Order: sequence, then structure tokens, then C-alpha cells
Amino acid sequence: MRTLRTLSTLVTCTGRSRQILLRFTGIGLGAATLVSVVTAANVPNTMYYDVSQFMAEPLTPQATLLKDKDDMKVKMELLIMKIQHDFCRALENEEDPRKKFEVDRWTRSEGGGGVTCVIQNGKTFEKAGVNVSVVHGMLPVEAVRQMKARGKDIVGKELPFFAAGISSVIHPSNPHVPTVHFNYRYFEVTQENGEKMWWFGGGTDLTPYYLVEEDVKHFHTTLKKACDTHDAGYYPRFKKWCDDYFLVNHRNERRGVGGIFFDDFDALSQEECFKFVKSCAESVVPSYVPLVKKHKDDHFTSAERDWQLLRRGRYVEFNLVYDRGTKFGLYTPGARIESILMSLPVYAKWEYMHSPSTGTPEAKLTEVLKNPKDWI
Amino acid sequence: MRTLRTLSTLVTCTGRSRQILLRFTGIGLGAATLVSVVTAANVPNTMYYDVSQFMAEPLTPQATLLKDKDDMKVKMELLIMKIQHDFCRALENEEDPRKKFEVDRWTRSEGGGGVTCVIQNGKTFEKAGVNVSVVHGMLPVEAVRQMKARGKDIVGKELPFFAAGISSVIHPSNPHVPTVHFNYRYFEVTQENGEKMWWFGGGTDLTPYYLVEEDVKHFHTTLKKACDTHDAGYYPRFKKWCDDYFLVNHRNERRGVGGIFFDDFDALSQEECFKFVKSCAESVVPSYVPLVKKHKDDHFTSAERDWQLLRRGRYVEFNLVYDRGTKFGLYTPGARIESILMSLPVYAKWEYMHSPSTGTPEAKLTEVLKNPKDWI
Repeated sequence: MRTLRTLSTLVTCTGRSRQILLRFTGIGLGAATLVSVVTAANVPNTMYYDVSQFMAEPLTPQATLLKDKDDMKVKMELLIMKIQHDFCRALENEEDPRKKFEVDRWTRSEGGGGVTCVIQNGKTFEKAGVNVSVVHGMLPVEAVRQMKARGKDIVGKELPFFAAGISSVIHPSNPHVPTVHFNYRYFEVTQENGEKMWWFGGGTDLTPYYLVEEDVKHFHTTLKKACDTHDAGYYPRFKKWCDDYFLVNHRNERRGVGGIFFDDFDALSQEECFKFVKSCAESVVPSYVPLVKKHKDDHFTSAERDWQLLRRGRYVEFNLVYDRGTKFGLYTPGARIESILMSLPVYAKWEYMHSPSTGTPEAKLTEVLKNPKDWI
Repeated sequence: MRTLRTLSTLVTCTGRSRQILLRFTGIGLGAATLVSVVTAANVPNTMYYDVSQFMAEPLTPQATLLKDKDDMKVKMELLIMKIQHDFCRALENEEDPRKKFEVDRWTRSEGGGGVTCVIQNGKTFEKAGVNVSVVHGMLPVEAVRQMKARGKDIVGKELPFFAAGISSVIHPSNPHVPTVHFNYRYFEVTQENGEKMWWFGGGTDLTPYYLVEEDVKHFHTTLKKACDTHDAGYYPRFKKWCDDYFLVNHRNERRGVGGIFFDDFDALSQEECFKFVKSCAESVVPSYVPLVKKHKDDHFTSAERDWQLLRRGRYVEFNLVYDRGTKFGLYTPGARIESILMSLPVYAKWEYMHSPSTGTPEAKLTEVLKNPKDWI
């Protein structure tokens, strides 16, 4: 496994006068332009990009990125590489400066690969994982079905597919800092009858251990803003979908206080869908990082730590029993298991018959998990 | 939830001369007779039993136990109640004398109930759970399918069923004491066409954190002896089945060093099948408790504790992702989730990219988990 701690090499550099510049400009949050493609006269088939704006080199060869720059597969790969970088750097700003993301760029013999970034046992982050994967090949229909809410519509035995996604789970050390998860993905599947399907999916959701209503409001408001620029109906619809999806059914409680979640998103043009997903992905840093900054140095007791571990047990239950993303990973031949299960916390705890006492902050959280509410 | 710490009440006691004695004699290990039914002349429909030989009252009303004493449902219930008692008492002998099993007798509104016995945060046992359940009613076919290796043969939507089983997982505190799991169960299902099926299933398997070959040999030899009294072919067949079943597929490693496992066991007469299951269940104490006694006071380091927690993470992965018993529980309407998930350890740990160094005891164990071997 190749570990790249920092990457600032210019990957391919010929004389500037003969370049196509595919440069990832250091966008601020919410900046509209991610990729600037600058063409010059008499350009050979080489490209130049500043990988300091990514955590590692993209998975797709440069020549393909250049040639297919208008293909959604390429656009999505470049988006998630950039989102990964921006989120990782924003988290590192809240961490002990000596602790940086460990970066593993991996390839999959069946096609494609990924970049997995992990901080483990940091001061602020007990475990922070941010994973990009861009994979393709043939997929058992069982795995394809896990990729899609309406998975049962898909027929065939083994189907050609492409999947590009970013997935992240952050488990902070301090019980007063919530856990966040987000995942944005783009799929293409060619069915047995030759019909090609594409769709987007994703979401961002928050799992606090202690409920601070204004924090939850901030989180939801930020997501709502990202949704509202596209369609005022998205936030309420995807907020409900999130509450419904992150249900630990056997306990009749939600994993957290929700956020947004959507799947099978293909109602608009591909370009419009992409723009919506981009807005959502770009809202992760402003929705979450302020909560880390606010609470990372809060005092906490060992009882609060204990409660955090018990809730992490529930997180594990959801991820291993219900989460479609995890199942998709477990069913995908040649999947990189360490990247899939990096979502699991360092420590988790189970206690037989644990139940918080009435009137405690722990009971207050539990109440909201059992009965999701509107935050805005 | 009713908690019964000790039960020594005589449940129904009329004058001895007018009794049918359905008495559970305190059998030693391997004793052949579990239930002595003593009939006297002119007996009314009352019964007497010494519940000090159980952890709680049986689930089925006394009158039914008496009336249907030759019914396999009753025989299995009484067997598992007794096995539960004997195992719990044997474990308590290895525990701080002030720490006893907490006993929860619970009922299920859809039919039946169970007795869950748990020690948590003991000196010897971090978590020890021994659960009996005797449940009946209607079951979604999805749940029925989880009950049986050949589950796909079963057709219908919702089927009348009966299930009686004992299930136990012991997570000791000391990393040098292995975890053990056993489960013995009896099922009846009536299919849509009216055909009634019955079968037994079960097994006992060991999950050490450090490999002590002679301990594994002792464990396997004890199980083999129990099998051999019935059929010399059983041990090799069920040993292999165990290795195949307890596979954490996504990691390509077994949960532990195996033992025996079987399902859909209906090849002999019901009585002969029962006797085999009884032998297996009675071999749990002699196969496992000596290992607890031998290692419970072993010195251990924090690095060894850490390894134990990482392996417990794998245990959680198996139980939540693959275990058919757990899935059966999660799919059963009105199931008591605390009893199903008592199999999870108090603490578990996940570390991104953890891999034991070559030549260490941790690597030696991992090698055996990847390539199961014959122990006898």
C-alpha cells in the first residue's frame, strides 16, 4: 500500500506554451467553478494539474481525464477528489498540527481504485475517514441492488457498472462534538438489454451524543440552503428520507438527528443533477466544522465518554446491519474492506439493558432519536 | 422486566402422595437422565418441580409441560432450561462470588418468551450471556429462511412456527481466556400446504485471542467425544461445517478456531436427534470451563488487551453481518433485542489497517483463522 503524506508534485509538466491546463483552483466554499480548463493553440495530448489541491493523484489516467472532460464520470471524479481535499484540510485545521491525514491511494484489480484518508487517535478526532472511490467493471446483481433504492428494478446476473463516490465518517474524541457522515455518489449501470442507467445519490447526517439544539439547527439550515438554491422542495423531501433511512429498525430509533438523504436522483438533466450534488457536497464543511471548533475543547466526564461509546455501538449496528453503502461494499468483489469499514469507530460499547435515566441529557437525546423532529 | 436473582421456590406443591413428580435431578456432566418422571397412582393434573435446578420458571405453563411431557417441544424446553442452569452455575464458580447472573424472565406478546441470564463487568467475565427462548406464533417467511440452512425450500408468506433454543456467548475479561459461543435449537414450522417440518440445529465454537494448541485440542476432543457416541461421522462433518459457517467473508478469515456446527438435523428419529443434541449441549461445560479456570488469572499486558478488543470487533462484524441466528432474531416480530444482542462484547475496537507483525502470537492466531486446521 502506497502512503502519500503530502503531494504537491506537478504531475506532468511540459513547457507552458504547449499545455492544456486542467487545474484545480483552490476554491473557497461555495465557489462556483471547480475546474478551469484552459486550452492553448497547438496543444499536444499532455496535461498539467496541481495535485496539491487533491489528497493524491486522481484514479483515472490523466489522458482520459483530459479527453473525456465533459463526461460525467470525469466530472464526478474531479469533484469528489476536490471535496475530499477541502474537507480533510478543514479537519486538519481543528487537529493537533502534528497529526495529519494518512493517505492511501489504492487500485482494484477488477478496475478503478480509491484514495482513503484517515486520522486515527488524534487529539480532536478519534477516527476520521474520508474515502474516494472510482470503480468500474462487472458487478453481481446483488451488489447492484444495494446501490439503488429501487434496486429491484434492475435485472441481469452480472452487469457492467461505474461508481464514483466520496464517503466519510468522522468520530471525534470529545463526546460533545457530534459524529458526521456524508456520502455523494454517481452510478452508471448497463442492463442486460443494453439500456444504460445513471443516477446520483447521497446525503449528510449528524449523530450527536448530546443534543445542542442550536447546533442541530445550524447543521440543518446549512443543508437546507444548499438544497434551496436548486428546488425548495428538496430539503423537506430529503430531510424526511434521511430520517426514514437512518433507522436502527430493531431498536426503533434513528442513528442521529438526520440531515438530508436521497437516492436514484435522475429527474433533471445530468448536468443539473450534478450541480445539486456539488452544492450538497460543498455544504459539508460549513455545516459541520463550526461544531467541531465550538465543542472540541469542552470539558467532559467519564460517564459522558461512556455514553458516547454506547451510542457508537448503535452506530456500528446501523452500519453493519442496515447501511446499503456498507452492503454494496461487502458485496463488491475485490472491494477494499479497510476503506469500507473505516466508518466504524475506534471504540464501541454494548451494555445489556442500558437505558438512560429520565430527565438526563442522555434521555433527552434518546427521545429525539425515537421521534425525529423538524429543526427549522 | 422482572429480575429474579435466585429461585428456589417449589412452584406447585400438593401432598406428595398425590403428585406426578416432574423433577429435574441435579445431573452431573454427561449424566444420561435429565428428567425423571415419577408417576403415582390416582394422580391429579398437578405437577411439582424444583426450580432451583433452573434459572427461572420454564416458559410453558406447568399443566402443558405435564400433559405434553412426551412432546419434543416440552422435552427441548426442559433440556435447555437445565443446560442454562448448569452452565451459569459453572461460570459463577469461576467468578467473584459476589457477582451472580442477573436473570430476566420475559414474555413475548406474540407467543412464548425466554430467560436471559447475564453477567456484566465481572472479574472473570466482562460479559457472559446465556439465553433460553421458547417462542411460537406466526413468522414472516424471511425470518423462517434464516432459521434453516436450506431455508429457500420453505414456501409461504407467514407460517406457524415453534422455536426453542439456548444461545450463549461468553466474553471473558482476560485476553488469555477464549470466548465461547454455543447454540442448540429445535424448530417446527407448518408450511402453507399443511406439511409440518421439524429439525434441530446447533453448535459450539471457540474464539481464542491467543492460540494455545493444547487448549484447542482439549476443546475439540471434548466435542468429538460427544459426537462419537452417536456417529463417528458427525465430528468431521460438523467440524468442517463450523469452519465454513463462522467465516467473516469480507476478511477471508474465520471467527475463531471452530468446533462443531450443524443445521437442518432431522435424519434420525426425533428422539435420536434429541439425544445427540443433548450430548452436544452437555459437552459445553467440560469443553470450555477448564480453559477459563486455567487462564483467568494469567498476566496480560495492555497490548494484549488491545488485541482482544480488535478481535472482538471482528466478532461484532460476524454477528451483525452474517450470523443467521442474529438475523433470525432481528427479523422476528416482537423479538427481545437485548437478548439477541447480548452476544456483543462490552467493548470492541476497530483500527484502520491494523495487521499484526510477522512472528508475533497475534500473527500466529491470524494464520490459523485464515487457514483452519485439524486439531485432533
